[in-house]
Amino acid sequence: MQKPGLPEGVRDFAPDVLRRRRYIFHTIEQVFARFGYQPLETPALEKLSTLTGKYGDEGDKLLFRILNNGDFLSKANPEALESKQSALLAPTIADRGLRYDLTVPFARFVVMNQGKLPLPFKRYQIQAVWRADRPQKGRYREFTQCDADVVGSSALSYEAELMQIYDLVFAQLQLPVTIHINHRKILEAFAEAAHSADKFVDMTVAIDKLDKIGLDGVVNELEQRGFDNTATDTIKDLLTTADLESLKLKLQHTPSGQEGFAELDTVNSYLEGYNFVNTRLFDPTLARGLSYYTGCIFEVKANGVAMGSIGGGGRYANLTGAFGLPGLSGVGISFGADRIYDVLTAIDGFPADLANDLTLLFVAFDADSHRYAFQTATQLRLAGVAADVYPEPVKIQKQMKYANERGVPFVAICGSDELAQRTVMLKNMTTGTQETVSVDQLADFLKQG
Amino acid sequence: MQKPGLPEGVRDFAPDVLRRRRYIFHTIEQVFARFGYQPLETPALEKLSTLTGKYGDEGDKLLFRILNNGDFLSKANPEALESKQSALLAPTIADRGLRYDLTVPFARFVVMNQGKLPLPFKRYQIQAVWRADRPQKGRYREFTQCDADVVGSSALSYEAELMQIYDLVFAQLQLPVTIHINHRKILEAFAEAAHSADKFVDMTVAIDKLDKIGLDGVVNELEQRGFDNTATDTIKDLLTTADLESLKLKLQHTPSGQEGFAELDTVNSYLEGYNFVNTRLFDPTLARGLSYYTGCIFEVKANGVAMGSIGGGGRYANLTGAFGLPGLSGVGISFGADRIYDVLTAIDGFPADLANDLTLLFVAFDADSHRYAFQTATQLRLAGVAADVYPEPVKIQKQMKYANERGVPFVAICGSDELAQRTVMLKNMTTGTQETVSVDQLADFLKQG
Repeated sequence: MQKPGLPEGVRDFAPDVLRRRRYIFHTIEQVFARFGYQPLETPALEKLSTLTGKYGDEGDKLLFRILNNGDFLSKANPEALESKQSALLAPTIADRGLRYDLTVPFARFVVMNQGKLPLPFKRYQIQAVWRADRPQKGRYREFTQCDADVVGSSALSYEAELMQIYDLVFAQLQLPVTIHINHRKILEAFAEAAHSADKFVDMTVAIDKLDKIGLDGVVNELEQRGFDNTATDTIKDLLTTADLESLKLKLQHTPSGQEGFAELDTVNSYLEGYNFVNTRLFDPTLARGLSYYTGCIFEVKANGVAMGSIGGGGRYANLTGAFGLPGLSGVGISFGADRIYDVLTAIDGFPADLANDLTLLFVAFDADSHRYAFQTATQLRLAGVAADVYPEPVKIQKQMKYANERGVPFVAICGSDELAQRTVMLKNMTTGTQETVSVDQLADFLKQG
Repeated sequence: MQKPGLPEGVRDFAPDVLRRRRYIFHTIEQVFARFGYQPLETPALEKLSTLTGKYGDEGDKLLFRILNNGDFLSKANPEALESKQSALLAPTIADRGLRYDLTVPFARFVVMNQGKLPLPFKRYQIQAVWRADRPQKGRYREFTQCDADVVGSSALSYEAELMQIYDLVFAQLQLPVTIHINHRKILEAFAEAAHSADKFVDMTVAIDKLDKIGLDGVVNELEQRGFDNTATDTIKDLLTTADLESLKLKLQHTPSGQEGFAELDTVNSYLEGYNFVNTRLFDPTLARGLSYYTGCIFEVKANGVAMGSIGGGGRYANLTGAFGLPGLSGVGISFGADRIYDVLTAIDGFPADLANDLTLLFVAFDADSHRYAFQTATQLRLAGVAADVYPEPVKIQKQMKYANERGVPFVAICGSDELAQRTVMLKNMTTGTQETVSVDQLADFLKQG
């Protein structure tokens, strides 16, 4: 007989874990909705032509491909079969793949529905994505992304509201964070100031590692990538100028710098009078690896917890270009739900009452009382109380053991006396006290706590 | 440039459709929870060894298989490659598949967590499943199932509560239905009474087609399957005896009949005093094709709408046997969300206010008013009102057109006067009336409707 198991890197979510996950998702979702973002869901299955070429060569390798159904070998590339070249064969036996992120399907949706969607279109999407990465602590092959994006406007008020969304969500989760903001144009200005505009990507790749390898590491990496001493010194100096005004002065001669700072000023003008609950930080060292960002970039880190970012995002000037619709600017943010879960677990930050989905369990001494318990439970359920009945009138000890394992706050004990008097013996499982309550008053009694 | 599209049989859910779907899911979910069912989620990716052999040969063909990553041909069956036999090759290049239903993953979960789960374990699960069926009207390759099951008890009170769940969900959805109930043992008694116990499966397959081919069709099918005239007449007579008591009499000499009717009586005893909002119907013609049912079986049909069943379920004596844990009885029901959606659409049964996720849109005449509008929107959002701001102070007509397309009930118009006086010109988009409201009173004004 086979022993069942799960594929590597995927998880079951048992009820207690799932309730905590849903608490995170619901909190995020409600804030998204309050800012006018509308829900969207796209299918897990996408054409591979939609997915490939969007995430770089590395991304393409991490796509999960679905084997075509039926006699898939009939259309297989014979040469690839002959020479046993997997990479060459795959595209001819698999037309579909699993969703790799939420941004590309969103862009596809926008293009397929152009003309029908009022622009700007603001959507949020909370769905699983799949990546054939090597599983490791905190990295899964199936995980949930939570994204909010606006498409069809380059207005900088959206950058401001996305920062407010981060602030509000983490305020509601009572998870203190720092919201880092930078602008890709300011990073371009670094490269210009260092007379290395041609090596912009090399520079951002190096800066992106600052958290991991430190400033000396970045300097080393820049040298290895061919930056001369003057360039390296300039970049090092700029990276350590955290003060916005000082940095503005140092970069005032660069066109990119002027543009980037002007945009940040506009974003800040919308935030005047708004009191951040969390820390907002202009962070010129924030690079974000993804090359498609073109404007403001964001990253969120939990205060006092050693963990990577728990959120990130930014402005991308050309969201839908790959699908033949140029000129649509987008900006969006993402929440890292798995890491938020881990941080809230580490700081004991989940509300205590999340586990109490069940208010009351009925236990009974005999068959008649059991039927009476069931019918009383029905009345409570109709009155909106979450109630359950132990399925059989076995030994009361066994039934009480189940009540404990189930973590239910109240148990209603039913015997022949209770049946005759239309009452239950209500036991408070926290305090251990018992009292007789009439069936008619039970729902009100429980609702009052 | 590629024109983007979706694979056959899968769908995007745009905001208006998704809100209606969520209304259905939330209604079902809340009733499940009130009856003590706990949420569970399992991954989309399962080992193929978990999935194959559980759904019959036809089901195996409909599984979506995930191509192994990397150099998958290195472990491919050379003989299958040589002879180009897809079916032989597939298991050697694909170790994982997509979830095909929610019952098998649930059984796998129970077995993997045995000893840790308090039994009986009641769970609900609302997740997508994938089947490589030929797409047609109302049949999709990716669709959502909504299941509730209990495992670890053979108590018949669960059958009673599952019927109540059906009744309550459809009462809350205001969708009048008939809940059909039968018992597999009563069908076995049919076969026994017809002296054809050895052809039980043939008989149920024929009866299962009654809705589609009518009584004469079933008789024909029975004859083709080798039932003689006496047997066919007996079965025909039993099928047309809808009255429970008459049927009991006719089957009183069969052991299976006695067992089946006794169980139905017990189920009914729990339902004494419960007033069904919907119609409950003992239906001896209800067969349900699936061979794993062993006790009560259920099916739900919308009244007055020509559509197949919108729910079904039943008792299976050996849920986890395939995974090496025999002796665990289960019973469960499922809701067909896509068909429920179609019926509610047909009868115009969705609540009218589902579309109104956004309460208020701000529009502005100039840059200063726009900033003022944004800051006022922030105040409202903090007060819990869903508000949005048109991103730029373009021509008011264009902004009002967007408000109409977005379907927002109120628009707050902001110009220099409003900015100076800390007010907005509030337009009710339904009535067309306008009035000046101070910013401090705006949230209360909108909350009062």
